[in-house]
Amino acid sequence: MSAAIQLASDNVETGSGGPFGAVVVLDGQIIARGNNRVTVDNDPTAHAEIVAIRQASKVLGSFQLTNCDIYCSCEPCPMCLGAIYWARPARVFFAANRHDAAKAQFDDSFIYEQLNLDNDDRAIPMQQFMRDEAVTIFEQWLDSNRKIPY
Amino acid sequence: MSAAIQLASDNVETGSGGPFGAVVVLDGQIIARGNNRVTVDNDPTAHAEIVAIRQASKVLGSFQLTNCDIYCSCEPCPMCLGAIYWARPARVFFAANRHDAAKAQFDDSFIYEQLNLDNDDRAIPMQQFMRDEAVTIFEQWLDSNRKIPY
Repeated sequence: MSAAIQLASDNVETGSGGPFGAVVVLDGQIIARGNNRVTVDNDPTAHAEIVAIRQASKVLGSFQLTNCDIYCSCEPCPMCLGAIYWARPARVFFAANRHDAAKAQFDDSFIYEQLNLDNDDRAIPMQQFMRDEAVTIFEQWLDSNRKIPY
Repeated sequence: MSAAIQLASDNVETGSGGPFGAVVVLDGQIIARGNNRVTVDNDPTAHAEIVAIRQASKVLGSFQLTNCDIYCSCEPCPMCLGAIYWARPARVFFAANRHDAAKAQFDDSFIYEQLNLDNDDRAIPMQQFMRDEAVTIFEQWLDSNRKIPY
């Protein structure tokens, strides 16, 4: 966790991105490090956890972080928590929480609230159409013998 | 939306990834296209929406998709919905929904449920420690004159 917090601290020092860091650990060794790179890379998805997960996946040559632990300097936002579920590590540890992040003017807490609203009530409006056409693609996927489940 | 669904269909055809596509539209023009690339890139974060958002941010040279619309062949999973909130587009349109995705054996619906559980009750255990050390970094961020808010 000290390494994750150090990455967050370095980011503040260098102005490279938001005050967040994350590391992925396997068998007691850090296999990937991520610092927030949103502003420096012009990439709204480049949160520390996402950067670390992508790096760890590359190191392992796998889209699953089996048996890995992820240490985050702050409780993962919904995007990062979603990424963690898709990566399926063993455990997650975090230091600051979403309310601490809100005090530092980060939207994590707001986004957690938005996710539970109906589509019509969200700050970013969401509308559904062409469902039938899209469901057909899922049926083709289920029938395909080329599919790799993940 | 037809373009997003076509990307999903192409992915099933070519075996390049899950059956999902997304496009980002600005002023009536598609500025970025994303297909799911999880298995082909060994990247659990490479959902169609994330790929499209990263591409659009690169095209615009900005970490904000101001005035853009995002069309997704399926309702965004929590990771992608989080990414959408961070990218702050104007509107989101989707075709299939999370329950359709669940029938095609994708975890979206499960992850939405998990996000609302307490840390102790989640399928991936989450534990907090070293909060004080991490909160200090947020204080340094707030005091920094090099910070770029996002």
